[in-house]
Amino acid sequence: MSEERWLRTGIGAADADSITLLGRDLARDLMGEVTFTELTFLLVQRRMPSPEETRLLDAVLVSLADHGLTPTVLAARLTHTGAPESIQGAIAAGLLGAGSVFLGVVEDTARFLEAVLADAGAEASEAELRAAAERAVAQRLDAGERIPGLGHPVHKVQDPRTPRIYEIAEETGRLGPHLRLLRIVADVHREGTGAALPINGAGVDGAALADLGFPPALLRGLALLARTAGLLGHLAEEMDNPLGMPLYREVDERAVYDPPE
Amino acid sequence: MSEERWLRTGIGAADADSITLLGRDLARDLMGEVTFTELTFLLVQRRMPSPEETRLLDAVLVSLADHGLTPTVLAARLTHTGAPESIQGAIAAGLLGAGSVFLGVVEDTARFLEAVLADAGAEASEAELRAAAERAVAQRLDAGERIPGLGHPVHKVQDPRTPRIYEIAEETGRLGPHLRLLRIVADVHREGTGAALPINGAGVDGAALADLGFPPALLRGLALLARTAGLLGHLAEEMDNPLGMPLYREVDERAVYDPPE
Amino acid sequence: MSEERWLRTGIGAADADSITLLGRDLARDLMGEVTFTELTFLLVQRRMPSPEETRLLDAVLVSLADHGLTPTVLAARLTHTGAPESIQGAIAAGLLGAGSVFLGVVEDTARFLEAVLADAGAEASEAELRAAAERAVAQRLDAGERIPGLGHPVHKVQDPRTPRIYEIAEETGRLGPHLRLLRIVADVHREGTGAALPINGAGVDGAALADLGFPPALLRGLALLARTAGLLGHLAEEMDNPLGMPLYREVDERAVYDPPE
Amino acid sequence: MSEERWLRTGIGAADADSITLLGRDLARDLMGEVTFTELTFLLVQRRMPSPEETRLLDAVLVSLADHGLTPTVLAARLTHTGAPESIQGAIAAGLLGAGSVFLGVVEDTARFLEAVLADAGAEASEAELRAAAERAVAQRLDAGERIPGLGHPVHKVQDPRTPRIYEIAEETGRLGPHLRLLRIVADVHREGTGAALPINGAGVDGAALADLGFPPALLRGLALLARTAGLLGHLAEEMDNPLGMPLYREVDERAVYDPPE
Repeated sequence: MSEERWLRTGIGAADADSITLLGRDLARDLMGEVTFTELTFLLVQRRMPSPEETRLLDAVLVSLADHGLTPTVLAARLTHTGAPESIQGAIAAGLLGAGSVFLGVVEDTARFLEAVLADAGAEASEAELRAAAERAVAQRLDAGERIPGLGHPVHKVQDPRTPRIYEIAEETGRLGPHLRLLRIVADVHREGTGAALPINGAGVDGAALADLGFPPALLRGLALLARTAGLLGHLAEEMDNPLGMPLYREVDERAVYDPPE
Repeated sequence: MSEERWLRTGIGAADADSITLLGRDLARDLMGEVTFTELTFLLVQRRMPSPEETRLLDAVLVSLADHGLTPTVLAARLTHTGAPESIQGAIAAGLLGAGSVFLGVVEDTARFLEAVLADAGAEASEAELRAAAERAVAQRLDAGERIPGLGHPVHKVQDPRTPRIYEIAEETGRLGPHLRLLRIVADVHREGTGAALPINGAGVDGAALADLGFPPALLRGLALLARTAGLLGHLAEEMDNPLGMPLYREVDERAVYDPPE
Repeated sequence: MSEERWLRTGIGAADADSITLLGRDLARDLMGEVTFTELTFLLVQRRMPSPEETRLLDAVLVSLADHGLTPTVLAARLTHTGAPESIQGAIAAGLLGAGSVFLGVVEDTARFLEAVLADAGAEASEAELRAAAERAVAQRLDAGERIPGLGHPVHKVQDPRTPRIYEIAEETGRLGPHLRLLRIVADVHREGTGAALPINGAGVDGAALADLGFPPALLRGLALLARTAGLLGHLAEEMDNPLGMPLYREVDERAVYDPPE
Repeated sequence: MSEERWLRTGIGAADADSITLLGRDLARDLMGEVTFTELTFLLVQRRMPSPEETRLLDAVLVSLADHGLTPTVLAARLTHTGAPESIQGAIAAGLLGAGSVFLGVVEDTARFLEAVLADAGAEASEAELRAAAERAVAQRLDAGERIPGLGHPVHKVQDPRTPRIYEIAEETGRLGPHLRLLRIVADVHREGTGAALPINGAGVDGAALADLGFPPALLRGLALLARTAGLLGHLAEEMDNPLGMPLYREVDERAVYDPPE
């Protein structure tokens, strides 16, 4: 019995007549009853979201689905060029670049905010929270590091996703401690450095997901779910209007061969 | 100009103040306005779905998200065991097994139905459609092949997902030619062989997605999107209740070493 | 007992004092005694190669390791851009494009040759073999298909790898039925069409690997092993001289946004 | 010109008549002239190894190729179960678990040794090196961390690979600073804690690769190359004697479904 603890799962089971997902009958209680976004919330958090939580999660997933011809999208489209019969390979290749440089910011921001919240303590006043933010920002800047969630190479003044997420979080009553702290962090950074860096989309999404109760270790996973939809869009386009092969040909033609001596 | 056709994209663009996705302003027209499911439809089909189409697509994605501890889920959980810091790797590993044996049925069924519809012709009567189905089924059976979309190792009499998808398709007025033909195929097969194989969940989902206008080459991709949500659920569980390491240990202990001579 | 057949493995085992690989003591019989190429042969074929077989296998792996900035190399370097901390992800992304369009030729050629050899029969005379090749080539051309292993977009007259593999195969006494038939196929194609397509590197490598006794289903795997070494070279270069990020930036700048109406 | 620095590559180039790799003619200078192991060294380090370096690198790659039915091997075999037509996907899945828990030790050990060597300084005496090792070991133990390269769950007294690598390193005159320091680290740890942990295979391989001049950031990559050969062995076995499907079936049957309340 106890040696089988590792073979317990709460996700799903099936018998001849029914399929159960997290204690609910798939065909009767979920299909036609919940949206894919609600199911995603249920799968990760093991409880159904409220309509307000669903609305905020939908906005976050929509905001994260695509950012144009990013390195990960290019990797997916180039992989499709070589193996068009294996769409799973192209999608996997398009997810594998979601690491410390791209998309990692969603998770990094949440972890940074969580650490500041822990440092300030559960009962922290606004002033105490601000003091904790000041310490954390100063420590990062002293170490020559960036503040996760601040700054964007294209959206230098304001990232259009940020005010929209705050608006929806406010409307839905889900503007929680992470989102609130992120604004304080941006203020503290601006006051301390004189440089007004906007809160970026990945950062505000990380804070919103943390306020929705998702654990930091899963946040990049939610971003990857959103990005999978974006990859489907790019692969649909690649099938009609290939970019991978001509990109390869142009790189191949222009590349200068400069061997070691 | 024309040599740059390959560098045209209709998916997305960004400038300092705005992000555009398929001609819509991301922050104003999409975030808070459309669900993640609607955005997925838009990304692949380049038009917004109707509420009825969204309802059917949600039901399909919900039905495909998880089927318990499948080989692909085990691959993802075992990959997480070795590289817990790279959730993108665990998710990618969990998608890579979605090939001809698993999940491929979604696409195979749609392609099979599409071929029968093409053979019958656009203006086919019910009788002509049935005759085309009889030819296609007979040809497969003669070649010793299965009929895509029929039969399930667990749901031997009825797959609970199938009547639910038909119900929702009916309700939403989206019971189109692929779903209709799939029922004819099941009838023809039963009458021809005496064996009553149920329409399986992957098959009915493939037919429904085809009726929703998704191209066959993208169907496995939509199944992979659904499955990514399921993988997030399993990885969340793996973090709390690890299965990968004990599974490895048990296999390692029980494995009999039987070297070549 | 019999229900455990699936938990038998002949590859390896370990106890407190020793590690065994295919019945050999790893530390005593393999490390320092066999090269990595010999070990690869042993792992797949379960017997040690002769020095001549090793020499030919080394030449094949060397010839397949790299072909410059191919789509798969670009996918690996772009993936490294986003997730430099996960080299396993960059390598995996660089392998996933080895499908029907790239590298698949190695396997396709071997399968094509195998089918012709089977059609001609084990005891076929030169004339019978030629007749079988003529039938197979004619059938492919009639179906509008290419002959696997013939033609190359860059090496239009001769692929420099091809005569070298034939030379080494001759020297080592390993010029077997697949390599011999491939020459006949090229002759038959030229005589039938008037177009002199050279035997390409992937094709000659596939034939050589088949003559070395590797099963067709593993041939793409051997090409992937070779390619992994090439990817290590490109990733080492990427760390010193990044190509992924500037490639993304240039694509992003030059891309024309052309949304659907 | 200078804006094209990112499009310079020293790896390879091809024209109609020749293929060049790192300044060498592939067909004339490399095929039949160098082994795959020598080519791997050349690709990463951009110079040809000596016969002694090749001998040590071969021993390291041989020692790292396989360790039985590890989590990564199981992930590859389970992926093959679902998508047998995409061997590239099964291999990629088998590499993606090579992270911080498995195989990462090769890189971690080299980085740890490199830091101690840097701390001791280039001209350090034996006593100074030992003092630096004592500081580093104490710091790790105080932080509750393991010493990379020491200890093994199966080889509790001695890992059979370790003395063999030292022997070959000695024979070939390549017993350099990393390998020497690793022995000091093991001594220091034993004297400090009373626990005699053996130097493990991954650790000694990391030290040997560092002594061969490979940069730490590439070491996991070399382990992945070795592991790819092991995966080919397991996939060859999987094709004859499937383990993925029965493993899934057994897990599915035994799993206890324990849904959230």
